[in-house]
Amino acid sequence: RHLLGRKMVRGWLPGRAADSHKGNYGSVLVVAGSAGMTGAACLAAEAAARTGAGLVTLAVPEGLHQIVETKLTEVMTYPLPQEKSQSLSPEALPVIMSLLDKADVLALGPGLSTNPGTARLVRELLGKISAPCVLDADGLNALAGHTDIFKKAGAPLVLTPHPGEMARLTGLSTADIARDRLAGAEKYSSLWQSVLVLKGAPSLVAAPGGNVYVNSTGNPGMAAGGSGDVLTGIIAGLLAQGLSPERAAAAGVYLHGFAGDRAAARKGMMGLLAGDILLALPEVLREMEAEVFRA
Amino acid sequence: RHLLGRKMVRGWLPGRAADSHKGNYGSVLVVAGSAGMTGAACLAAEAAARTGAGLVTLAVPEGLHQIVETKLTEVMTYPLPQEKSQSLSPEALPVIMSLLDKADVLALGPGLSTNPGTARLVRELLGKISAPCVLDADGLNALAGHTDIFKKAGAPLVLTPHPGEMARLTGLSTADIARDRLAGAEKYSSLWQSVLVLKGAPSLVAAPGGNVYVNSTGNPGMAAGGSGDVLTGIIAGLLAQGLSPERAAAAGVYLHGFAGDRAAARKGMMGLLAGDILLALPEVLREMEAEVFRA
Amino acid sequence: RHLLGRKMVRGWLPGRAADSHKGNYGSVLVVAGSAGMTGAACLAAEAAARTGAGLVTLAVPEGLHQIVETKLTEVMTYPLPQEKSQSLSPEALPVIMSLLDKADVLALGPGLSTNPGTARLVRELLGKISAPCVLDADGLNALAGHTDIFKKAGAPLVLTPHPGEMARLTGLSTADIARDRLAGAEKYSSLWQSVLVLKGAPSLVAAPGGNVYVNSTGNPGMAAGGSGDVLTGIIAGLLAQGLSPERAAAAGVYLHGFAGDRAAARKGMMGLLAGDILLALPEVLREMEAEVFRA
Amino acid sequence: RHLLGRKMVRGWLPGRAADSHKGNYGSVLVVAGSAGMTGAACLAAEAAARTGAGLVTLAVPEGLHQIVETKLTEVMTYPLPQEKSQSLSPEALPVIMSLLDKADVLALGPGLSTNPGTARLVRELLGKISAPCVLDADGLNALAGHTDIFKKAGAPLVLTPHPGEMARLTGLSTADIARDRLAGAEKYSSLWQSVLVLKGAPSLVAAPGGNVYVNSTGNPGMAAGGSGDVLTGIIAGLLAQGLSPERAAAAGVYLHGFAGDRAAARKGMMGLLAGDILLALPEVLREMEAEVFRA
Repeated sequence: RHLLGRKMVRGWLPGRAADSHKGNYGSVLVVAGSAGMTGAACLAAEAAARTGAGLVTLAVPEGLHQIVETKLTEVMTYPLPQEKSQSLSPEALPVIMSLLDKADVLALGPGLSTNPGTARLVRELLGKISAPCVLDADGLNALAGHTDIFKKAGAPLVLTPHPGEMARLTGLSTADIARDRLAGAEKYSSLWQSVLVLKGAPSLVAAPGGNVYVNSTGNPGMAAGGSGDVLTGIIAGLLAQGLSPERAAAAGVYLHGFAGDRAAARKGMMGLLAGDILLALPEVLREMEAEVFRA
Repeated sequence: RHLLGRKMVRGWLPGRAADSHKGNYGSVLVVAGSAGMTGAACLAAEAAARTGAGLVTLAVPEGLHQIVETKLTEVMTYPLPQEKSQSLSPEALPVIMSLLDKADVLALGPGLSTNPGTARLVRELLGKISAPCVLDADGLNALAGHTDIFKKAGAPLVLTPHPGEMARLTGLSTADIARDRLAGAEKYSSLWQSVLVLKGAPSLVAAPGGNVYVNSTGNPGMAAGGSGDVLTGIIAGLLAQGLSPERAAAAGVYLHGFAGDRAAARKGMMGLLAGDILLALPEVLREMEAEVFRA
Repeated sequence: RHLLGRKMVRGWLPGRAADSHKGNYGSVLVVAGSAGMTGAACLAAEAAARTGAGLVTLAVPEGLHQIVETKLTEVMTYPLPQEKSQSLSPEALPVIMSLLDKADVLALGPGLSTNPGTARLVRELLGKISAPCVLDADGLNALAGHTDIFKKAGAPLVLTPHPGEMARLTGLSTADIARDRLAGAEKYSSLWQSVLVLKGAPSLVAAPGGNVYVNSTGNPGMAAGGSGDVLTGIIAGLLAQGLSPERAAAAGVYLHGFAGDRAAARKGMMGLLAGDILLALPEVLREMEAEVFRA
Repeated sequence: RHLLGRKMVRGWLPGRAADSHKGNYGSVLVVAGSAGMTGAACLAAEAAARTGAGLVTLAVPEGLHQIVETKLTEVMTYPLPQEKSQSLSPEALPVIMSLLDKADVLALGPGLSTNPGTARLVRELLGKISAPCVLDADGLNALAGHTDIFKKAGAPLVLTPHPGEMARLTGLSTADIARDRLAGAEKYSSLWQSVLVLKGAPSLVAAPGGNVYVNSTGNPGMAAGGSGDVLTGIIAGLLAQGLSPERAAAAGVYLHGFAGDRAAARKGMMGLLAGDILLALPEVLREMEAEVFRA
């Protein structure tokens, strides 16, 4: 059991060699979004880019492609086959697999909706991928009743449930989960053989090998729509730069809270939006980079 | 009769418990917008999010859905059935009712247009809802000649007319209303059994129980298109966090003026846009939060 | 002949009474834009709003309506009949006339294109309107060879040609115009019975009554696409607040240059974009307002 | 062989005469973009404008025209014939040639995709143009196996390959290129009779006449998607203002790195996005302008 602190996280941050190029910092594929929920997709993709990934591609249902392409600049975008309701269709599976040929990391889930076809796509995808994958939000909901897939997956997984999503995954009540969060995180991380980020106060990160990290950053102003999508992107960005799933998840949770604390210092807690966490992210990264150079 | 001051409003602001999550801060549904007037809808929705609501959904005529989804990030969006002119159709009624199953507050009116079908939708909606509702702008205009609906409504209402809208609602001239604004606010709040925000210098808030609040903030730089839409969103955001309609309206008027004063200090009065009020909002909320913690 | 200075312009700025509302600050209709040139339309409309107009509506070719509605928030938008090439059609005439029923000022020209049908629309419109009108850019080009329309117009006109547009209007060469700019401005202002803003270094404003103003602000960093569109909007915004065409033009030129000087102090001259002038505008207005209150 | 330093670059920057107008600062045509990669196109176009070009037009596949017109304001846009996959079609050739009648510089390549039809268009275009041209990214990839076109081109060319693109152009491995970058840059610049910017640490600029410039600015935080597109725009913007291809390339590389260093000082290296380089550009230009005036 470790308290996640600044020094520990700083030591994990990837360096940047003078003669490196964008290929050295990895490529993230974000699969996300459905009608009315493209904001979640954009927040996750931008967070991956802001955390230092060399290239980020956001793939969304094709009817929403123009929206995300209009909103994003440094992130590339890709249209995927969709259901009639503008959420992803199982037919997107081969397209996503071919996009993964050029990506190092998959971030899957933000704003996908609970469409049954989309949920099926998520389950089938987890059975096929080999790249590290951050699974969040509706991506997690798709696995309720199918958690056997986690253990069978050929790829390292980072799961990032909030208490409601954790309840759906485990079949427990949120009260049950709240009773002993640490024990629950350890148990299910081991059972599912996945890195598990259990969001809360404090957020916990449990790894299958037995390590558990207790976060020391964050504030209740971050309790707002979109905040979790930013975390998903940060973890994916760190994975792309070569951190292990365990460290990417732990450092991601720490940095997300640190940026949220900085944002709250400026915007307060009531007025805080998820985009403010994103805006504060480069600054907290820069401060930690500076310490690395000084150290 | 109360002078709305900083200390009073500060005492009403919701706290944020360390272990709270976005579900604790409520969900706002904003129903707004028509062709050429999506800006009003966006301002109201963003103001609700900026005031601390946990989740905000903006529902607009379906032909305008892509526009608002492109503009907004933390706010979710939803397309509703529309008239040929791209304003809401009466057929939107059941869809809105089902969206209200997952929302705690309704904000209704900004930029709806004066289309007769849309006006009918507004009236029918008020007869069916039970969640607290802020009614503004074209939402109010739809009730001209139908103010009996206010008293019969099953939901707590906050009405936010400017003098012109108040004239249309009451059948009086704006000069009549200007003559004794305080008495008028008290009279119609009681008659309509609604919290009534009568905009002006100063803005007044009258509650059916007899309380009247006189605002102490605001400036004539706020006399610009979109300013009122921001107020609607602020009040809805406070309602979502559990303030009573009376306090949400009074605190909303105070905070709107306070943010407007801060914005004018930076942009001046001529150059002030409604979006500047929105930008200043987190900062004034943060200052008041800080005082709460100190107190 | 007057040197346009800070004190003179400050004395013309409209005050803001404590109990005023947005109706007191006038309504501007901007008719502008064509395929690929909506940016000019947006800059003009935003500048009118930033200068203090109570309401601003931007009317564009209907195929471009979604673009401007996505870009603008405080400005309302309106779709007009268009030619196949997405520039305005003569069929837009009655629609514009009916929009003018609710507007106090017309700004006409930015980004209209040189489509012959659009040029015909401009000429027909000038023959019908009675509200003060700022005519710029392709709006002016439409009048080349038809300058008799200026004198016959029933509305007060402000014309804002740069030397190339002035050459097209007068049939002179730009060298001819450069030879004695002051005499040229006086002559054509009188001949056309219009307020004439002759852009250059310095910009000149000549009024039919014989007054000529020589501007004292501005810098060559403002020589960039879109700069003139911002000026058009500023003049329209001042007209909406009740300044005479002569004073609106003169104050507009001064404020445009003042904001440009402020922008250049921050961005330099090479890096200056038209949008930077817009961003600096509220600040210079605020400083002049402050002096009014002190005076 | 020259070390590219501040004083040298400063001496090349164009001045701005008091009575100059936007026509004095040239017109840039950017031909770029394909489905999912409009961000690259926008970054290049905005960089050209931010570097001081008088007018900038971005021409993209017609299906993507609305996206870039929504994103850009000071940059004009133009729709071009496209392949089914929304990349440029060879049929765009005559349209681009006619747009070049009114442009002084062509920037070609960012985000064009590797579509064979688009690659053919690039090659045909290089055979016909006479205006100086910056060729980048997929524009360069189109020339792999066709480098004879460089020498035969009637227009001065600036080529800006990163090591991977250089490998594709030369048929060498990236390791071969890395072995002696200086010699490679000199050799191919001479062989292709083009100014060659070989990106790396440090970036090198070799001109056919034999001059080689070694850059002294830049940092590995700039190793992120979109960074190169900004450089393309900067060089094009300088060409438009009359710098020779050799000086435009050298000064462009210097300014790009200088802006990137400034951006990294604020955002750190991990958190740096290409757009941050763009944002820092006016400021570094302003500082160098100030030194020119002092000198």
